[in-house]
Amino acid sequence: MSGSRVIRHTGSEWAGVERRRYKDDPGAYLGVVRHTLLGDRDSELDPDLSFEVRYFELEPGGYSSLERHDHPHAVLVVKGSGAVRLGDELERIGPLDVVYVAPRDVHRFEADATEPLGFICVVDRARDRPQAVDEGGDEP
Amino acid sequence: MSGSRVIRHTGSEWAGVERRRYKDDPGAYLGVVRHTLLGDRDSELDPDLSFEVRYFELEPGGYSSLERHDHPHAVLVVKGSGAVRLGDELERIGPLDVVYVAPRDVHRFEADATEPLGFICVVDRARDRPQAVDEGGDEP
Repeated sequence: MSGSRVIRHTGSEWAGVERRRYKDDPGAYLGVVRHTLLGDRDSELDPDLSFEVRYFELEPGGYSSLERHDHPHAVLVVKGSGAVRLGDELERIGPLDVVYVAPRDVHRFEADATEPLGFICVVDRARDRPQAVDEGGDEP
Repeated sequence: MSGSRVIRHTGSEWAGVERRRYKDDPGAYLGVVRHTLLGDRDSELDPDLSFEVRYFELEPGGYSSLERHDHPHAVLVVKGSGAVRLGDELERIGPLDVVYVAPRDVHRFEADATEPLGFICVVDRARDRPQAVDEGGDEP
């Protein structure tokens, strides 16, 4: 057997998984941390995995970048509550709600003011870079 | 915008998602239901999604098939507690633990006797069929 393993949740982190900045580039986001749980595209680990499993946590009042890209997102909320902007719609989300973000749709995740928002986000390991958009949906 | 959506968790199910039998074939498993949340390979939905996101729930005392296959599994526990057999090892698992099942490794998920076990399992949309194995790890 090689590679199969349990990655234990230790309360607020996962054993052996680094908490990272959300993005290497500064951008229009606030209070976001990222834990890459499986299939890290910057690693040699799990070469048979064609997708990446990440956990994002937005602090109370935090939000991710308003952006679009060609690759889809599959999201599962596991902690707290907040909202997701999908195009012009803003939808409330909470534990075990699933969000599908289709290719090229503008989106942003937002935590409530008093609660963090934690979610799993699965993406293709090989994918295009996100493009930031402004509030009108255009590239700045 | 087309395709992006929130699939709401309604307590024990997801709105608009059918609860299905675990497998169409009978086999060596007990008390398992499956909800295919995104990327259902038997549907035309979300054609840009290269992976499938499923939720499995094992009733107390339930277990999945002892099996192996070429495709890897990425698993996140979201409810209850139990164990996962990975090769000859049996590991306890609970909420937000992550399990990676590498290609060809024999595995089975088991709920505790007094609690269900609910987990998300992500797989490639195009994948090989599982092969059942017996307790010794051989195909029966």
